[in-house]
Amino acid sequence: MTDVLVVGCGLIGTSIGLALRGTGQVVALHDRDDQHVAIATQRGAGVAWDGSTARLVVVAVPPRATAETLVELQRRDVALTYTHVSSVQSHVQAEIEALSPDPSAIVGSHPLAGREVSGPGGAVQDLFVGRPWAICPANDADPRAVEAVVALAQACGGTPVHVDAHTHDEAVALLSHLPQVASSALAGLLSFSGPVVAAEALPLAGPGLADTTRLAAADTRLWTEILSLNASHVLPSVRRLVSQLDELAVALERLANEDDEQALRTITGFLARGNVGRSQVPVKRGATSDAFAVLRVELADEPGALARLFTAAGDLGVNIEDVRVEHIPGRPRGVIELVVEAEGRELLGRELAASGWVVLGA
Amino acid sequence: MTDVLVVGCGLIGTSIGLALRGTGQVVALHDRDDQHVAIATQRGAGVAWDGSTARLVVVAVPPRATAETLVELQRRDVALTYTHVSSVQSHVQAEIEALSPDPSAIVGSHPLAGREVSGPGGAVQDLFVGRPWAICPANDADPRAVEAVVALAQACGGTPVHVDAHTHDEAVALLSHLPQVASSALAGLLSFSGPVVAAEALPLAGPGLADTTRLAAADTRLWTEILSLNASHVLPSVRRLVSQLDELAVALERLANEDDEQALRTITGFLARGNVGRSQVPVKRGATSDAFAVLRVELADEPGALARLFTAAGDLGVNIEDVRVEHIPGRPRGVIELVVEAEGRELLGRELAASGWVVLGA
Repeated sequence: MTDVLVVGCGLIGTSIGLALRGTGQVVALHDRDDQHVAIATQRGAGVAWDGSTARLVVVAVPPRATAETLVELQRRDVALTYTHVSSVQSHVQAEIEALSPDPSAIVGSHPLAGREVSGPGGAVQDLFVGRPWAICPANDADPRAVEAVVALAQACGGTPVHVDAHTHDEAVALLSHLPQVASSALAGLLSFSGPVVAAEALPLAGPGLADTTRLAAADTRLWTEILSLNASHVLPSVRRLVSQLDELAVALERLANEDDEQALRTITGFLARGNVGRSQVPVKRGATSDAFAVLRVELADEPGALARLFTAAGDLGVNIEDVRVEHIPGRPRGVIELVVEAEGRELLGRELAASGWVVLGA
Repeated sequence: MTDVLVVGCGLIGTSIGLALRGTGQVVALHDRDDQHVAIATQRGAGVAWDGSTARLVVVAVPPRATAETLVELQRRDVALTYTHVSSVQSHVQAEIEALSPDPSAIVGSHPLAGREVSGPGGAVQDLFVGRPWAICPANDADPRAVEAVVALAQACGGTPVHVDAHTHDEAVALLSHLPQVASSALAGLLSFSGPVVAAEALPLAGPGLADTTRLAAADTRLWTEILSLNASHVLPSVRRLVSQLDELAVALERLANEDDEQALRTITGFLARGNVGRSQVPVKRGATSDAFAVLRVELADEPGALARLFTAAGDLGVNIEDVRVEHIPGRPRGVIELVVEAEGRELLGRELAASGWVVLGA
């Protein structure tokens, strides 16, 4: 018997299939687009669905199609328990309650994971590993359905976080949807600026612009659905963002003419609130940055240089947790930043320096 | 004779000293805070200034103190040529012209480089390598002063970009100061949200929040100066940001009540402008992302695994431009993302797969 039927073979659905197949579960795949099923099955995410029953149905289609798809499958008695993975919970839950003959068998969930690429070709088996997976049962949810969704999250390597649909939507409005809005708005201004900016100014762009606009590459269709269906939760945050920026603009307007102590204090307050907010943001999965240390090493920008460096680290038994290479076109040497566990840093730095590597200041 | 006198031993001044010392120049260091000079000299950025003359003076103090510091040194005839490294050019230049007995000997410049840490302890020798370094001479600048500043930028490994002060200020308003504003505003909202968000919501935060709020950790004193002194250029961009967000808020307000085709189109348009703007952002120094391709490879999370992978790539002659490791504590396998030149991706993927590596979808 099929363990899990995944309906919707996009990035999330196909990644779920890959993760479950990795634990030996029997996965069936369905999508209204046969091409998506073909890619997903070819990638090993499961077999094409033949219409038979499953223990659990996972609907991974865009938010606006989610409730309807779930209820249609439920009417066909495809499974005893159902879930979905929508980025928006309250709206979908309300639709389920309006349409479903038995809403208690459907428990909404949302894995907080994604990539900048979409579709089954972008799916990866480890997409959910170590990521939070929100579980949002209604009050009258069938405990067996809740259990099945928790087991799904765990099988995919995610960390179940129980949260009601309203709190979920409020949280993602602030933590996911608002960063998307800010990033799109910021990048959007560049689109207005015309060729002068492109030619004269962009050579002056630094890494700050790249980081803050990364999310702006988002899928406009999917994000139109997400923002519109969570509009009631996103709206107050956007209004607060506008009011913060308005206050700043008033201060800047005064300062454009003359120095004004009050206006300077407004700007400092604005920046200080940013300091406080930033200090609350988790920067590494499950670990604060104190557990890790950075070692910067100069290296020749040529094939094989990294290999020699990592061989040296491996020989010392120091595990490299993360790596960043600053590749500088046209220059013979670059700098690599190695993130290692804090206790391994000194040993590695000392030994690399002793072997002739140029180890730079932290 | 001293080649360069650096006045202001913060992150930038001390990094300039380290870079120049690396090329064998004689560097003198001065700061009104003796402790900063002590740290900078101890780190090898130069020797404490004894009041004697130098070929070039570099003033690296906060923007509001820049012109006054320059003119005082110029009155003492410390050098023939002078520069500063202020993030804001027009305002400082206007002050120089008002105060200096010979403004033509002073040429403003601005290295587009920085780190999240400040002070002489955070300084690194290669901070400017491959980064743009704006050179902003006034019309009547002494050619010898311009030449000295260009040589300074090059000696530090930076790329001189000639641009007038007004264009510089307009460009950094959009590309540096506005990202700072957006990041601080976004993070600032978290500071309002209280303990509920901290306890319930933050476990749901993803990497998007971390990226978009990174700049919000900024030095509030320095950034109050930067934003206030560049207020006339930052203001129009903040106003445009507000007007974008206002338009979005109106659409969200309609959608919070009922579906509205026009409001949905507004949201899609907002997101699409973000797509366009993002596509203009250089994500790698001097190259758009089209020139590079990503290859994802599964590898054992153990010392030596990376070395074997890079040895394999080096053997194929494929240069690795950038690397990201997703280290997942407690799991035996991780995924590494290699950024390689687009033309090398297929060869590398095929050969790695043939050698038994697990190559994942792009």
